[in-house]
Amino acid sequence: MDGASKTDEYQARIEAALDRWLPALEIPPHRLHEAMRYSVLGGGKRIRPLLVYAAGEALGTDPALLDAPAVAIELMHAFSLVHDDLPAMDNDDLRRGRPTTHKAFDEATAILAADALQPLAFDVLCTDPALVPYADTQVALVHILAEACGSEGMTGGQAIDLASEGNRLEAAELEHMYRLKTGRLLRTSIMSAAACPPRPDLDGTHALERFSDYLGLAFQIRDDILDVEGETEVIGKQQGADEARSKATYPALFGMEQARARVAELLAAALHELDSFGSRADYLTYLARLIVERDH
Amino acid sequence: MDGASKTDEYQARIEAALDRWLPALEIPPHRLHEAMRYSVLGGGKRIRPLLVYAAGEALGTDPALLDAPAVAIELMHAFSLVHDDLPAMDNDDLRRGRPTTHKAFDEATAILAADALQPLAFDVLCTDPALVPYADTQVALVHILAEACGSEGMTGGQAIDLASEGNRLEAAELEHMYRLKTGRLLRTSIMSAAACPPRPDLDGTHALERFSDYLGLAFQIRDDILDVEGETEVIGKQQGADEARSKATYPALFGMEQARARVAELLAAALHELDSFGSRADYLTYLARLIVERDH
Repeated sequence: MDGASKTDEYQARIEAALDRWLPALEIPPHRLHEAMRYSVLGGGKRIRPLLVYAAGEALGTDPALLDAPAVAIELMHAFSLVHDDLPAMDNDDLRRGRPTTHKAFDEATAILAADALQPLAFDVLCTDPALVPYADTQVALVHILAEACGSEGMTGGQAIDLASEGNRLEAAELEHMYRLKTGRLLRTSIMSAAACPPRPDLDGTHALERFSDYLGLAFQIRDDILDVEGETEVIGKQQGADEARSKATYPALFGMEQARARVAELLAAALHELDSFGSRADYLTYLARLIVERDH
Repeated sequence: MDGASKTDEYQARIEAALDRWLPALEIPPHRLHEAMRYSVLGGGKRIRPLLVYAAGEALGTDPALLDAPAVAIELMHAFSLVHDDLPAMDNDDLRRGRPTTHKAFDEATAILAADALQPLAFDVLCTDPALVPYADTQVALVHILAEACGSEGMTGGQAIDLASEGNRLEAAELEHMYRLKTGRLLRTSIMSAAACPPRPDLDGTHALERFSDYLGLAFQIRDDILDVEGETEVIGKQQGADEARSKATYPALFGMEQARARVAELLAAALHELDSFGSRADYLTYLARLIVERDH
């Protein structure tokens, strides 16, 4: 299996799908649509969509069914980044090496552009032609995504993260916050593929849930490590930004060595869960390694 | 028919349903959940849920099927109010006679609380037990609501409204903005009832669509009139707030007399569309009058 080629292929697929689903610039309100497209089509790595397609490979799912969940999850991810970057939140000026949406446009437009990405995500799940014959699957996908983004999911994680500024979280609290803030949407990527026909049996479902949880936590700790050691140029946002705001992070709590050891341990545990899927999970394995060993 | 009693009964019903669906204060993150409850349970008139139930009466729909759409639409309405009130948007300190959410809490919490109301709205439609047997209806309800709240619906209307500050909109542009900003969610209230079994035939559907459009426009023009002539105490927000920001409004464009005449004309047109529903639409008629003739 050529993981790099597959990644290129799926990235091209998701870029095309995102471009197709986002409102065209010619449609009014123009500036709002421009801000929506700017927020989403900004050259992200598309980790979540890649996970949707990779999990689909492990399960033998028709990729045509996976375009809608891949798009919906990426729109929701973009929504969260735009709001997290706002002055009232993390107050970041740079994202993916470009001005954040409120810097490139203005604050009101950034708030509204993200607000409009949320319902678009849900609407994609309802209207994509490939999914229309499967109403039960559509409802399951909306439910999984809605729960992941709610007050006990991603948005709750961001609230806990903001509240933790200047406070020293316990390790268990920190891992809980990570599970909500980043973990839930990564888990949703995997479990959305599992919600499409053919669905895995209960053992397969549980293995994928555990895989997602280990991977999500490893991803976030890796992100913290990169924030400490990366250079602004490579990671595309201000290096040391977390430390500057005295945010709780894994390396701050345990030191870099232990943080790295925890990432390796979580990756091994995640990959172990894929054993029963055999070679069909080769790309998912490749992707998990790539995500956790990335340098930006 | 005793319209006032029915209103009391349905208001009690929607308050109980909202309270049941909103996360309890005991569930973390506590402050976020407190802000969500504050934003929704602040004594609104619940016009949109009342329209859902009233349209359901006209169509002979089991009210048990209507609780979920009524809750979902009211959560989405509350979401939009919290974001519209933010400093970067309308910068309002008062709403329903109380401090706005960002004043009672803080800006970040207000943004996040509203962000979490959106997915909750969609999740209610997916998980309410009464709707679970009707997956096609659930998908239709998610679709109608998502489209209404997106960039070519409510959020787009708010973007146009902000962009219009200090500019003189043409009448057609103003009515288009009203249709998106307020009209779409009112229309969604009616059409969500029509999406539940038993569905009306095509003639009935079109009559309800036209009814919704006339009513939505009348509602918004009435709102503008109230903003000019109402007292702060009665309308619960700062009187003359629109004028202070040089916002485009119907009375500013045409004068009060013509604005009032237009409201009366639109109400008559709306009620005419209900003729074919006979006495089953009595409460919907009552409600339409109440909404358009309200003094706050």
